[in-house]
Amino acid sequence: MYNHSELKEVVDKALTNLSYNKEASRLTDPVKYVLSIGGKRLRPVLSLMTCNLFSDKIDEAVLPAIGLEIFHNFTLVHDDIMDNAPVRRSFPTVHAKWDANQAILSGDVMAFVANDCVLQAPPDKLLKVFRVYNKAAIEVCVGQQLDIDYEKASIVTQDEYLRMIELKTAVLIAAAVKTGAIIGGGDDRDSELLYEFGRNLGLAFQVQDDLLDVWGDTRVFGKTQGGDIVANKKTYPFVKAMETAAGRQAKQLQALYSGSESDPDTKVRKVIELYEQLNLREITETLAYDYINKAFGFLQKVSVDEARKKEMTNLAISLIGRDH
Amino acid sequence: MYNHSELKEVVDKALTNLSYNKEASRLTDPVKYVLSIGGKRLRPVLSLMTCNLFSDKIDEAVLPAIGLEIFHNFTLVHDDIMDNAPVRRSFPTVHAKWDANQAILSGDVMAFVANDCVLQAPPDKLLKVFRVYNKAAIEVCVGQQLDIDYEKASIVTQDEYLRMIELKTAVLIAAAVKTGAIIGGGDDRDSELLYEFGRNLGLAFQVQDDLLDVWGDTRVFGKTQGGDIVANKKTYPFVKAMETAAGRQAKQLQALYSGSESDPDTKVRKVIELYEQLNLREITETLAYDYINKAFGFLQKVSVDEARKKEMTNLAISLIGRDH
Repeated sequence: MYNHSELKEVVDKALTNLSYNKEASRLTDPVKYVLSIGGKRLRPVLSLMTCNLFSDKIDEAVLPAIGLEIFHNFTLVHDDIMDNAPVRRSFPTVHAKWDANQAILSGDVMAFVANDCVLQAPPDKLLKVFRVYNKAAIEVCVGQQLDIDYEKASIVTQDEYLRMIELKTAVLIAAAVKTGAIIGGGDDRDSELLYEFGRNLGLAFQVQDDLLDVWGDTRVFGKTQGGDIVANKKTYPFVKAMETAAGRQAKQLQALYSGSESDPDTKVRKVIELYEQLNLREITETLAYDYINKAFGFLQKVSVDEARKKEMTNLAISLIGRDH
Repeated sequence: MYNHSELKEVVDKALTNLSYNKEASRLTDPVKYVLSIGGKRLRPVLSLMTCNLFSDKIDEAVLPAIGLEIFHNFTLVHDDIMDNAPVRRSFPTVHAKWDANQAILSGDVMAFVANDCVLQAPPDKLLKVFRVYNKAAIEVCVGQQLDIDYEKASIVTQDEYLRMIELKTAVLIAAAVKTGAIIGGGDDRDSELLYEFGRNLGLAFQVQDDLLDVWGDTRVFGKTQGGDIVANKKTYPFVKAMETAAGRQAKQLQALYSGSESDPDTKVRKVIELYEQLNLREITETLAYDYINKAFGFLQKVSVDEARKKEMTNLAISLIGRDH
């Protein structure tokens, strides 16, 4: 079996070896740029790891897994235009380095490069694999729409927020896991169990991400503490706080998110104080753990020897355990 | 066999009956809007007409044909952002009616709705059909990039221009025709001949479009005469003029395209005068006819009874014959 870092190497190599249409380098330069910057490669690594649960041969799963990574990066390129974000993973975003039109068009071509990769799935599994991918792709767009809508909305419920992150983040992780299962030879039951594993893992991952923005350690995790708070992002702690706070606290939080405090450090401190009065660290941690436990529950039911699941379990723990 | 208007009806009905994810109407409203505005539906009609060459049953070809139309409209939504175009087909563009971010995201989801439609191809032909579609999709992006690049370039050669319109317009028409052939049961030779028919038809169509902007009749064709000239668009007559003009004429044309004449009517008149000195009406017409004749040459070789080709021939003539 392959371990995590071997799989990441397989993924990085496949991404490097991709060939592109040579007629318009201005179109593909931003694509190569984005894909060279890296990141965890979580989706393709998980996809290959899942394939590897069922089969010692993973090569048929590589290009479809890469396809999902390219799709993911396509959404980042376009989301960064919409969010007007100048930097991602410490590098200038495509629209900042080139311009918005270039980011639209180079993003667009990535969707079809992703298609090309998914089309390399074994022909007898192509329809199944492509349907799983494409369903997730549409759901990710819906998730991004809800994210935009909720940014403008005055009230977002906990349920709405969780559904939004499910669509925007969790379903693609789930699809990556499921396509790996299908290509590896998992049956329908196992593929579905693994989809649910991925979905819950993705939810845990996103809730944990929200948690780390407030209570993470900047030195270790590289994120500025309170960045979401400064940007008035409606994260899980915020949404939950608005749902549970008493009148005065809710008003205070709303005011802080509406610009009542001009100094960002003071704003972050005051919001965190409110969160702590409402016991939100524990509530958020508990939610992340609930999801991860659900994820493990699904993984456990998969009809594969427990020994083969070890790498997957470790990856899941490492994802959620960054804070501990 | 189906006639042109029956096929258009089939296409319009299938587009109307498409179902969408219901969770984010803000995402799909612009999609429905764009697809309801209509247009000739040239690509799906040609696709079904080609299927109908080989088979009396066309229903398996309907959704893939619709997929290509949705892809085409996706490119229009994004191109209109890049061109900052306020109106298309007499209606406000998506980014004008909503905003640029909405046009990016609703455009994006159309790419995956298109995938969903192409995935409905008969399973035994899916891989072939999807590859034809996806190759064209990537080429259209390359064509749009070249179009953007050439707009900024001081000199564009005739060959560069023709390759650009081939990628931006002709290959998708060719792909529409070819997918219809594959699904209808045409063999590889006939499918390739029909691809070439579509490619040459697409080239003829675009060159004719450039011609009509200069010498078309506004009352009949609904386009403002000289719109491309006012917008400094590098059309075939312009590119060819720059390639064939003597020094003084070339300088004059360059100056007119660089803003030396502030009154648009005078500018259009002067550019057309130059074109006529260079015999460009005849040269452009001849080129369009060369392409249409090549197209018919390929169609003729297709191993299908000539009587079955009549509707296709008529459609091709009507496309190119708008001026006569």
